[in-house]
Amino acid sequence: MNKPTLLASIITLALSGCAQFAPSYNADLIITNGEVLTIDGNMSVIENGVVVVKDDKIIAVGEAVLAEQYRAPKLIDAQDGIVMPGMINTHNHLPMIAFRGLGEEGISNRLFAYFFPLEGEKLSRELIYNATKLGAIDLAQSGVTTYADMYYHMDEMAKATKEVGLRAVLGQTVIKFPVVDSSAPYGGIEYAQSFIDQYKGDPLITPAYAPHAVYTVSKEKLQQINQLSKQQDVPVLIHVAEFPNEEARIKEEHQASSPVEYMAQIGILDERVVLAHGIHFSENDIALVKQADAGVAYNPMANAKGATGMAPAWEMYRTDVRLGLGTDGPMSSNQVDLWRTLSYASTMQRLKHDDRTIMIPEQVIEMATMGGAKALHMEERIGSLEVGKQADIIIVETQSANMMPNYDPYATLVFQANPSNVDTTIVNGEVVMENRQMQTVALDDVRSTIDAMEADISAFAKELAKKAIKSKSLMD
Amino acid sequence: MNKPTLLASIITLALSGCAQFAPSYNADLIITNGEVLTIDGNMSVIENGVVVVKDDKIIAVGEAVLAEQYRAPKLIDAQDGIVMPGMINTHNHLPMIAFRGLGEEGISNRLFAYFFPLEGEKLSRELIYNATKLGAIDLAQSGVTTYADMYYHMDEMAKATKEVGLRAVLGQTVIKFPVVDSSAPYGGIEYAQSFIDQYKGDPLITPAYAPHAVYTVSKEKLQQINQLSKQQDVPVLIHVAEFPNEEARIKEEHQASSPVEYMAQIGILDERVVLAHGIHFSENDIALVKQADAGVAYNPMANAKGATGMAPAWEMYRTDVRLGLGTDGPMSSNQVDLWRTLSYASTMQRLKHDDRTIMIPEQVIEMATMGGAKALHMEERIGSLEVGKQADIIIVETQSANMMPNYDPYATLVFQANPSNVDTTIVNGEVVMENRQMQTVALDDVRSTIDAMEADISAFAKELAKKAIKSKSLMD
Repeated sequence: MNKPTLLASIITLALSGCAQFAPSYNADLIITNGEVLTIDGNMSVIENGVVVVKDDKIIAVGEAVLAEQYRAPKLIDAQDGIVMPGMINTHNHLPMIAFRGLGEEGISNRLFAYFFPLEGEKLSRELIYNATKLGAIDLAQSGVTTYADMYYHMDEMAKATKEVGLRAVLGQTVIKFPVVDSSAPYGGIEYAQSFIDQYKGDPLITPAYAPHAVYTVSKEKLQQINQLSKQQDVPVLIHVAEFPNEEARIKEEHQASSPVEYMAQIGILDERVVLAHGIHFSENDIALVKQADAGVAYNPMANAKGATGMAPAWEMYRTDVRLGLGTDGPMSSNQVDLWRTLSYASTMQRLKHDDRTIMIPEQVIEMATMGGAKALHMEERIGSLEVGKQADIIIVETQSANMMPNYDPYATLVFQANPSNVDTTIVNGEVVMENRQMQTVALDDVRSTIDAMEADISAFAKELAKKAIKSKSLMD
Repeated sequence: MNKPTLLASIITLALSGCAQFAPSYNADLIITNGEVLTIDGNMSVIENGVVVVKDDKIIAVGEAVLAEQYRAPKLIDAQDGIVMPGMINTHNHLPMIAFRGLGEEGISNRLFAYFFPLEGEKLSRELIYNATKLGAIDLAQSGVTTYADMYYHMDEMAKATKEVGLRAVLGQTVIKFPVVDSSAPYGGIEYAQSFIDQYKGDPLITPAYAPHAVYTVSKEKLQQINQLSKQQDVPVLIHVAEFPNEEARIKEEHQASSPVEYMAQIGILDERVVLAHGIHFSENDIALVKQADAGVAYNPMANAKGATGMAPAWEMYRTDVRLGLGTDGPMSSNQVDLWRTLSYASTMQRLKHDDRTIMIPEQVIEMATMGGAKALHMEERIGSLEVGKQADIIIVETQSANMMPNYDPYATLVFQANPSNVDTTIVNGEVVMENRQMQTVALDDVRSTIDAMEADISAFAKELAKKAIKSKSLMD
C-alpha cells in the first residue's frame, strides 16, 4: 500500500466514522428505562418508558421502542427510576429562607413581634437576591421545577431564579404600608408594572401582581390591579381566608359574608387569580371560586405548623377546583420542597373527614403536578409529560433503603420518598441537576454569602427573640 | 558513622517513633468540633463540643479543651455537624417493611380485607429475617439507634438487628389466634419464654412480651404475662386506645370505662409496660398511666395517615408521663425513620389545641431521644449524651441546602432536616454508618433478596387489592 492510498483509506474511514457516530439529531435529550408517570388525563403509567425532548419541549412520550426513532446528543438512563413532571409549589415567599428556623421558641404574636421587625431591619435587595439563589437550589435539588411567590424586589428574585434555571410565577407585593422596595403605600403597583414590562414573555419567569390580602389593600387598589392584570394579561396572587378573623373584618367593613364573596362583589375574582390558603372557605366560597375559574394554593403543612387549620381541600378536589399544593414561606413551613407537604396533603384531609380512604397517593401526586399547573393557569404549558408541554421533568431513584420496596410508585412518592431521592431535575429542556449534582449554580458558589448573611441576622434575631418572649409573658 | 552506630541510631529513631505515634490510648473514639445537644436535665448545648467513648460507653462530654485529655485510635471530626443522642422509635412492626406501599388505593377495611390475608399468605421466618435487615439499615441510615417492636419470630428479628448493629426492644406477639410462629392460640407466650432465655442480658437486644391488645388477649393470659414479666424482669409492649370502639367493647365485656382502667383493675398496668398509641386516653387514663409509671409511644404520623385521631400528647408531656415517639409499622407510616414524625409530633398538637406556641422543636427532640428512653424504661442507659450512658450517638450535617441557615439546631432538626442529613450513626460504641456509608451490613448485600421478595409478594398483592376494592364497593 503506497502512501496516497493509505491516506485515502484513512479519510474514507474517518468519513464513515462520522456517518456512524455523528448522525443528524432529531432530538436534544432522550430519557429511557424509567417508570413514567405521565399525569395525563388518564393518569397513564408507562412501565419501561421513554421521554424525548427537543429544545424546551417534550416531543414524544411512549414505550421503550419509541427510543429507536430518535437520536440525541444527551441520553439519560433512568434505570429503576420514576420519571414524572417536576413538582409545582404554588405558594411561597422564598427569600424568607434567610430567616428560616428563627422565632421557633413558641412566640405567640410571631407575625407582629418577630416577622415584621426582622424584615423591617434586615430585608434588602441583596438579601432577596442571595436568599432566592439558596432557595432555588434547595427547590431544584428536591424536584420542584416551578414555584409561585409573593414577595418584594421581584426583579432580584427573577434574576436569581433564572441563574439557577427554575420556572417561577413571581408576584410583586402590593400593600398599604411602606415596605422594603417602596417607601410609599401601594408603591408595589408601580414596581410591578416595571417588573412586568421587563419580564413579560420570558421563557421561565411569569411576572404577576401580588396584592397581599383584601384586608391590607383597599377596594380601589384591588380593582385597579384587576384592571391592570387584564390589560397586561398577567396573574394575580393573593392571600385569602387564612385566618379566622378575616370573615368578621369583611362583614364589618364591607357587608360581604366572606373574603371570597367580597372579591366576587367588587369584581376581582376571575380566571387570573390564585388564592393562597382558603382554610376558612365555605361551600358557597368554593362554588364562587369554581365559577370564577380561579386557582387555589393548598398549604397543609404550614397551616398545621401555624395551627391555622385544615382547608376544605377534599371538597375542592371533588368539585374540580383548580387546586395545587404549596409550602408557604420558609418561616411557615421551613422546608421549601413538597415532599412532606405531599404527606400532609393526604393526612390532614383524612383526619378532617375521619376517612382513611380519601386523598390517596395518586390524587396527591396529581395535585402536586397537574393540579399546581391548573392552579397557576399554566396547564397548557406544564404539569404533565405530554407532547407539546415544556420539558419540566424529574427522575426519582428507587434504590435507596427508604425507597424499597416500590410496589406502587404513587404511594412510594407520597409516603416513603425524601427530597434526596430526586436524582435529576430538568426545566424547560435544560438539565439543572443530574446525579444530584447541580449543573447551573453550585451551592458552594453561594455558601460564603449565606454564611455571612446568617451571622449578620443571628445577633439581631437573638435580641429580638428576647423582646418577643418578654412581650408574650407580659400578655399572659 | 560506622555501621553499628547507624543501626543503633535507626533503632533509637524507631523506638522514639513508637513512643510518639502509638501512645497508650485512654479512649476508643473521640468526636470533636460538633454542636453537641446533650439532652441532659438542663438540655445543655455545647457549641464546639467533644464526646469521648470507651468500649460501649460515653466517658466524657464537654468543651473543646476536653479533647486534649484523651487519645483514641478513632477520631471523628464533626465540623459543622449537630452531635446528638440517637433517636428512639418506640413503636414499630419493622418486618412489615416487606409490604410497605401496598393497599394504599383507598381500601376501607384495610386491616381485615388486606393486612391479615397478606400476612397469612406471605409471612415466614425467612421474610421476617430479611425484611428486618432492610428495615434496620433504613433505621441506621436515618439516625434511629434504638427501636421497639411488636411482631413474630423475634429471634429472627434479633439476629438481623444485631447484624446491622442496632439496639432494640423486641416484643414477641401474644394473641388469641393462630399466627405465623404458632399454630395454637397464645403460642406466643411459650415462644417468648424461649426468646427471653436466649437474649436476656444481651448488650443490644432487650427481649419482651407483646400481648397484642386487651381485646385480643384474655384477662387470664394478660395476668399470666404480667407475672412472667415480673419474674423475668422484662418489658411488656401492648396496643392501647388506638381505635374509638375499644372503649365500648371494654365497657360491655369488662365493666371498666376504658382499656387503661381495665388494665389497672386487673393489675397489669405497671412500670414494665409500654402502651402504644393512647389516642383515646381520657384525663383519668393519663393519671392512671402516670401513677403506674408506664410508658407511652406516641405515633402522630401513622395516626394521621390512618385517620385514627390525635393523641393527647401535649397533656401527657405536660404531666411528665414517660412519652416517646414512634412510627408504628411500615404499612401504617411507610417511613420507619422519625424525621417526618418529628414534624407531626408538633403540628398535630398545635392543631388539636389551636395553639402555635406549644410543642416547640426543643420539646420534640427531647421526646425523640430522652422521652423515648423513658417510655421504654431505659433512661439509665440511653437517651442522652452523658457520662456513663451507652454510646448511641448520631451526627447530622448542616451543609446541605435544606439545612441552611441553621440558627436554632432544634428547629433545624424538626422542621428542616431530612433522613439523608444523618452523616454518622454510632450504637453501643460501634460505628454503624460513617459519611453515609454503612459499616456493618451494606444495602447491596440484601438487595437481591429484597427484590425477589418484592416480586413474589407483588403478584399476590395485586389480586388481593382487586378483591379488597370489590368487597369495598359491595359495602358501599
